[in-house]
Amino acid sequence: MAPSLFPDYPPKLTSEQEQYLLSNLKDWSIAHGLAVRPTASFVSQKQDPSGVLATTAPVTLFPSLFPRACFEEGLAIQQAFNELYSAISRDENWLRGIVEELVDIDDFVAKLWGIHVTVKKEGYVQDLSLGLFRSDYMVHIDPSVSGVSPALKQVEFNTIASSFGGLSSQVSVLHNYLSKINAYPHSVASIIKSNSLPQSKSASSLAAGLAAAHKAYGSPRTSYPTCILFVVQDPERNVFDQRHLEYSLLEVGVRSFRLPFHRTLSDTKLESDRTLVYIPPNSPSTPYEITTAYFRAGYSPDDYPNPEDWTARLQLERSRAIKCPSILTHLAGCKKVQQVLATPHSPHLKRFLPNDAAASRVLATFAPIYPLDKSDSGMEARKLATTPELAQRYVLKPQREGGGNNVYRKTIPEFLKTLPESHWPAHILMEMIEPPALKNAILRNGEVQKGGVIGELGVYGVCLWKNGSGLDNEGKVLENWEAGYLLRTKGDQSEEGGVAAGFGAVDSCCLVDV
Amino acid sequence: MAPSLFPDYPPKLTSEQEQYLLSNLKDWSIAHGLAVRPTASFVSQKQDPSGVLATTAPVTLFPSLFPRACFEEGLAIQQAFNELYSAISRDENWLRGIVEELVDIDDFVAKLWGIHVTVKKEGYVQDLSLGLFRSDYMVHIDPSVSGVSPALKQVEFNTIASSFGGLSSQVSVLHNYLSKINAYPHSVASIIKSNSLPQSKSASSLAAGLAAAHKAYGSPRTSYPTCILFVVQDPERNVFDQRHLEYSLLEVGVRSFRLPFHRTLSDTKLESDRTLVYIPPNSPSTPYEITTAYFRAGYSPDDYPNPEDWTARLQLERSRAIKCPSILTHLAGCKKVQQVLATPHSPHLKRFLPNDAAASRVLATFAPIYPLDKSDSGMEARKLATTPELAQRYVLKPQREGGGNNVYRKTIPEFLKTLPESHWPAHILMEMIEPPALKNAILRNGEVQKGGVIGELGVYGVCLWKNGSGLDNEGKVLENWEAGYLLRTKGDQSEEGGVAAGFGAVDSCCLVDV
Repeated sequence: MAPSLFPDYPPKLTSEQEQYLLSNLKDWSIAHGLAVRPTASFVSQKQDPSGVLATTAPVTLFPSLFPRACFEEGLAIQQAFNELYSAISRDENWLRGIVEELVDIDDFVAKLWGIHVTVKKEGYVQDLSLGLFRSDYMVHIDPSVSGVSPALKQVEFNTIASSFGGLSSQVSVLHNYLSKINAYPHSVASIIKSNSLPQSKSASSLAAGLAAAHKAYGSPRTSYPTCILFVVQDPERNVFDQRHLEYSLLEVGVRSFRLPFHRTLSDTKLESDRTLVYIPPNSPSTPYEITTAYFRAGYSPDDYPNPEDWTARLQLERSRAIKCPSILTHLAGCKKVQQVLATPHSPHLKRFLPNDAAASRVLATFAPIYPLDKSDSGMEARKLATTPELAQRYVLKPQREGGGNNVYRKTIPEFLKTLPESHWPAHILMEMIEPPALKNAILRNGEVQKGGVIGELGVYGVCLWKNGSGLDNEGKVLENWEAGYLLRTKGDQSEEGGVAAGFGAVDSCCLVDV
Repeated sequence: MAPSLFPDYPPKLTSEQEQYLLSNLKDWSIAHGLAVRPTASFVSQKQDPSGVLATTAPVTLFPSLFPRACFEEGLAIQQAFNELYSAISRDENWLRGIVEELVDIDDFVAKLWGIHVTVKKEGYVQDLSLGLFRSDYMVHIDPSVSGVSPALKQVEFNTIASSFGGLSSQVSVLHNYLSKINAYPHSVASIIKSNSLPQSKSASSLAAGLAAAHKAYGSPRTSYPTCILFVVQDPERNVFDQRHLEYSLLEVGVRSFRLPFHRTLSDTKLESDRTLVYIPPNSPSTPYEITTAYFRAGYSPDDYPNPEDWTARLQLERSRAIKCPSILTHLAGCKKVQQVLATPHSPHLKRFLPNDAAASRVLATFAPIYPLDKSDSGMEARKLATTPELAQRYVLKPQREGGGNNVYRKTIPEFLKTLPESHWPAHILMEMIEPPALKNAILRNGEVQKGGVIGELGVYGVCLWKNGSGLDNEGKVLENWEAGYLLRTKGDQSEEGGVAAGFGAVDSCCLVDV
């Protein structure tokens, strides 16, 4: 943990101040859909079987401090990241190399790849692809250099189901509202002010991305009306986040439906030309032609409990609908790709991002990541990981998607001793990001928790591209824009009685010049 | 109950149709603040001590059928009603006559009048008055005449705390949304269509009324910033209804605060020139000058459990703030006024509404109301009330505000027998309004109840006037507009297992030509 940017933030509130802030926050959030369905431990299914209750989404009472230069850099390089990941998605051969290294340790990746291979054999009928991306960062202050400026370091890049774009827009409006009604005391008036509260346009901007794909799909092949399909988990507590995108779409005249992923085979069908058709259960006689399949499910092995779920994913991939994302784009988001790009002296970034200036700004956001194999980098990493003083600045992560726990710092050498060396390559070693000490208060399930927090900035990006096909496999980016931001804040585990570790809240940035 | 307008409405839904409609309704309502805090029987205070849970406001699944001509007439005559009630409010002598008849039976009215007398003696310092009115109607089909057109009959006229303007705007958007996403089956496509779903602008229009008063208040007397004060009950389950007005106000740059009525004396003070100042408990060092006191509390004797509550009302009335409503306007809304206006052959309406055309349209909405005193009308009424066959078409109501139960139809003669004749004048006799049979389904606390319903149309009105003073007691209407509508629908008690009697839901109109 690096030193704090501002030791006296957030300000202490009197009980009257806290009551005023909370009552306004709680009412505003429900009035504007900054909400989630309550957890089962808060409201049991028995108490509310039809699910009408809702609660304020976990949210910070104050916008968290964030270095202005880092924020602006994150937004400024999003288009380069969009270009990078769309280029990776289009390079099947390169991705094959990545996947081949993972098939033995990650069954999920192997199965996704298998779907691509199957569809490729038959031939894809849709050459457009949509990415609603989110690049996640933390602020890093190098502890070994004094007086250094904070820098933005990438935590991960999401190519599927990037969430909270709907709620994030609302949080920045909420904090702005609380500032307007003087819910923040005078003592922070020089910090929380209108030009330090950037508003996130994520909800409307992500919806505009879906609408662009919907339009680019072109004329329908059937006589049916067209729609976008939201492929979702069921039940979904975070439903309002998704609904805000649906409502934005409807405002520009685009219909959408929510399809629980497990109902894919019963509620959709492929025409002989692989046009994807949705049959609404409430009105089976009025089918819709699906222009775009937007995945808010299917990103985790947990979404595929039955073999039919893989058949469902195959059906969607085979279809003429534009996928957000396609299987290849989904795979481009796997941790191994991030690791390969961020391995020191890696040649890969330049390959996908020929613009030197853009590439070097993107590179500057990578925390060094090492494989634990027998390559040169791998041997270097093994030395770092097995020497306690050096390991101190690293985290060991499993390569598997969503797989297991990270091992931190000094405990890495001991942990590696318990593993046979042949299992070491299933992990990567990443330099720890050292965020500045930060405090905030989080409202969750009606309780306010105060203490040390860590903020993670997510920058959304919309990218629509043509994959290209056959010999001319060039592809072409058709739309590319930065699409707003998310700040997610959670307890930093550093303090007893502080914010419950790991539980995140939606937040917005209060920019500071440091 | 008159015959139905459309026997097959609302349509029967398959379980898939109902599920589609409900899941979209439940999500939309929370995402757009069509919500209430749950009742204590649904969610106990112990479970959610800080009050973060909310639920969909009780709402109808379908917009209720409503005769187009009646709807349009209701909106068209609202300006005349605004004029009427602002004229009554300005006629202190006339109101004194009304109050004098009530002082013995209605302590609440007497106390309100007492406040006026006290302030009058000292002299009012504010000659502007704001009314946010709501005129409530039912559709009446005369059972004694066959083939007659439905007519609009007034149930009551609200001059204080007219509620649901915030939620009403949202319900009409909700039903329109459900129609757009095909949640209503094809069988009603010719009934529920865009030109049959009038959107209510009540939230923004009522807020515009408050903003007009705020502006008309003129330059502040103090150096403090100005605000509007919402005087509210505490706790308030219907808080989002009020909040929508606050948010609309903030959009046009007008600050407002919520003051629980019982905190009036601790959080406001009168300057020596009777400027009303609000001291925010969260920030006592930054007082506000109150331009307008908007009462969403204080309309019921229950709001005055302690003598200090009457002191509080007096403090507000004495102040320079524009009252919405003033005591005289509050009293203009008492039942006795409605009764006097609606007594057959009454000369009073013409007195206040000299425009003959307007007066006759207003008069047409009155169901005849009779006193039970010894006047000519009263003697006529006594005959109607004591003869079972004649009483069949009447309801007996206590004159007291919010006082006790109504007695219906054939049970009136028996009831009167149990009362000494000297007590009869504490009641009025009103011709029953006979609404057409209507069905709908209501979602309340997660349960859907289906059956016969009665709808009550409320038309909002904004009126800002100058009271005039001294000899020149003419007064002048400065602003006068119709401000959207509310449809409130409740069970008609006519069917076993139907919609729970008396429990209302917010609704919107589906206009039909009949």
